[in-house]
Amino acid sequence: MKLPNCPTLEVDLESIRSNYQLLRNKAEHKNSASVVKANAYGLGVKQVSQTLAQAGCKDFFVANLEEAIEFRQFDSASNLYVFNGIRKGQRSDFIAHKIIPVINDLAQLEYWQQAGNYALHIDTGMTRLGITPKQAYELPAKSPHLKLIISHLACADTPSHRKNAEQLELFKQISKHFQGVSASLANSSGVFIGQNYHFDLLRPGCSLYGISPNSELANPMQNCVKLSAPILQYRKIDAESDVGYGATSKVKKGSILATVEIGYADGFMRNLSNNFYGYANNIKLPIIGRVSMDMLSVDVSEIPQELLRDDLRIEFINQNQPVDIMANAAKTIGYEIFTRIGNRVQRIYA
Amino acid sequence: MKLPNCPTLEVDLESIRSNYQLLRNKAEHKNSASVVKANAYGLGVKQVSQTLAQAGCKDFFVANLEEAIEFRQFDSASNLYVFNGIRKGQRSDFIAHKIIPVINDLAQLEYWQQAGNYALHIDTGMTRLGITPKQAYELPAKSPHLKLIISHLACADTPSHRKNAEQLELFKQISKHFQGVSASLANSSGVFIGQNYHFDLLRPGCSLYGISPNSELANPMQNCVKLSAPILQYRKIDAESDVGYGATSKVKKGSILATVEIGYADGFMRNLSNNFYGYANNIKLPIIGRVSMDMLSVDVSEIPQELLRDDLRIEFINQNQPVDIMANAAKTIGYEIFTRIGNRVQRIYA
Repeated sequence: MKLPNCPTLEVDLESIRSNYQLLRNKAEHKNSASVVKANAYGLGVKQVSQTLAQAGCKDFFVANLEEAIEFRQFDSASNLYVFNGIRKGQRSDFIAHKIIPVINDLAQLEYWQQAGNYALHIDTGMTRLGITPKQAYELPAKSPHLKLIISHLACADTPSHRKNAEQLELFKQISKHFQGVSASLANSSGVFIGQNYHFDLLRPGCSLYGISPNSELANPMQNCVKLSAPILQYRKIDAESDVGYGATSKVKKGSILATVEIGYADGFMRNLSNNFYGYANNIKLPIIGRVSMDMLSVDVSEIPQELLRDDLRIEFINQNQPVDIMANAAKTIGYEIFTRIGNRVQRIYA
Repeated sequence: MKLPNCPTLEVDLESIRSNYQLLRNKAEHKNSASVVKANAYGLGVKQVSQTLAQAGCKDFFVANLEEAIEFRQFDSASNLYVFNGIRKGQRSDFIAHKIIPVINDLAQLEYWQQAGNYALHIDTGMTRLGITPKQAYELPAKSPHLKLIISHLACADTPSHRKNAEQLELFKQISKHFQGVSASLANSSGVFIGQNYHFDLLRPGCSLYGISPNSELANPMQNCVKLSAPILQYRKIDAESDVGYGATSKVKKGSILATVEIGYADGFMRNLSNNFYGYANNIKLPIIGRVSMDMLSVDVSEIPQELLRDDLRIEFINQNQPVDIMANAAKTIGYEIFTRIGNRVQRIYA
C-alpha cells in the first residue's frame, strides 16, 4: 500500500476483532462490552466501533456526552454508556440520543433515575468516581431503570496486588444487594485475573488495541498498529557533528542520518530523545539527539545504501516493537502513547 | 465569563500581541516573523496568526504543506514559509497557494528554483535539516528567486553554551557569500542572546506564547493561557483510602477530593501523577494519585466548604503557575506541554 507523505498510524481492524473475540471467549457468559473513549484510545472511534459491533459487541462505553453524541452519528443501535455520568442540563441530550449514564453520585441519581435506563457506579477502592458501598446498601435493591452496576479495579494489571481480592469481595457483597441486576467489574486487566472477576459483562479497553493487560505475564493480545513516518532528508556526515537541540549527541564521520517527519507535536514523546529506536527493512535504528517538535533524527548507516530512497519510511511501533516497548522507554503506559498521537498523524485502516 | 462544562484552554490574544511587540522591538530592524507551526503550538493557528498579522507581522512559518494550505484559508496576503521544504509532486500546490519553501537540500533546490521565491536553509550545527556550509559556498551568490537565507541555533536557550558563538560565526561568513539576501538566524532564544544574532528577520515561536526563551534568566514574556477543567464529583473521605490506579497514594479521613475532568488523553502528562498542583481561589491543591486517561484527583480540603460548588474549576496553567512550571515538573519543555493539549480541550479566545 502506498502511504501518504506524512506520519501515519496504520490500524489493523482485523486484529482488533481478534482481540475482542479472545476477550469475550474468556468469559463464562461470552459477553463483553468495549471501551472506546478518547477516540477509541486515539485509533479512531468510528472505524474501531463499527468493527467491534460487527464482531458482536452490543455495549460501548465512552467518557462524556460529546463523545456519545459523536458515536451516535454512526451507530444508533448499540447500548451506549457514558462513564463520566450526567451533569445538570444534559438530561434531554441523553434522552434524545438514547445514552445510558453511569451514575456516579446521589445527586446524579436523583436528577436522572426517572428518565430512563442507567448504570450505577459503586466505588470499591479507586476513590475516583462512584457512590460508596455504604450509600449503595441504602438504595433499594430494585429500581425500574437500573440496568447495570459497575465498579473499577485499581490494581488489576498486577494480579498479585492485595487490593484486587479486597475489591472483588466488596463488589460480590454489593452485587448480592442488587440481585438480578447485571454486574460488571473487569477492565482489560481484570479479564485475566480469573473468572471470578468476570460477572455478567466484561469491559475491556486497552487490550482490544493490543496493549498488554498484565504486567506479570506475556501479552496475549495482538499488536494492531504501525506508526511510521517519511524521511525529510538524508544527511551524510562529513565530519563528527553534534545532533539536534542542546547538542546532546554526536555522530561520527561517515555516518548517515535520516531526518524523519515526526516529532513531539505528533505525540512522539520527547523523553524518547537518545532513548529509542525506529525500524526500516527490519533493521533497528537508534534515535540520535533530541526529538524536535516536528522531526527527529535516526542513524540509518546500517541500511544498505541502495535502499536509502526518498520513499523509505521509519517505523516506530510495529510487530517488532509493539506500543508497550515504546511506553517502557518513555516511562509511561501504552494508553498514554496511543491517546496522545496527534492530528497530523493520518489514520489508515486495513 | 461562563466556561463550557469541559476542559478549556483560554488564550489571551492581547498577551500574544504584547509578546510579539516586545520581541520585534528588540531587533535593530524592527522586523520579526512568527512561527505558527503545529497549530500555533496548540493554541490555534487561525486566531493566533490573525492577531499577529494585526500587530504588524508579515512573515509566518509553518511546518509542512498541509499546515500552509490551512493557513491560506484565513490569510492570503502574508508571506508564508514551510520549514520542512518541498517534496516531489508538491510544486503546483506551492505555486497555487503562494507558499515559499525553505529549501533544505540540493535536490529540492533543483526541483524548485525556477518556480518562485524560496528561502535557503544552511545547517550551521543542528545536523537536522539544511545544506552544508560547503554546499552553500558552491552556490552562486545571487539567484533571482532566493529571498532569504536561514539557519537554526541548537543551544540558544543556554546563552553561555560554546555552540552559539560557533554557529554565529559560521552564519556570518555564509551571509557574506549571499550578500544582499536577507538573513534570519534567531529563534526565540536567539533574540535574547544579543543583537549580533538578529540579522534581518527574527523568527520567534515559543516566546510568542509565553514560554521562557532562556533557561539562565527570568522569563521576560507574558503568560498567555489558562488551562482549567470542571469537577466531575466531590468525594468526602470517610476512612483512609487509596487513590487511583496502582493505589500509589493515600488520603486521610476527613479530606475532600475533587475528581477533575482532565486526563492524559487531554495531554495532561501522566508523569505529573502525585507530582503537580492545581489552583482554585488562589489556593494550591495537590494532585493525589495517578493521572487517569480522562480525569485526575486533587485534594480540595483547604478550600472553604461553601466554595465547593458544582461550577468550581481547577486551574493547572495560569498566572500563578505558567506553562514552564508544569514543564519542569513533567521533566520536559513548555513546547511539548502546549503542542500535546488534546482535542477535547476547548480553546477559548479573549
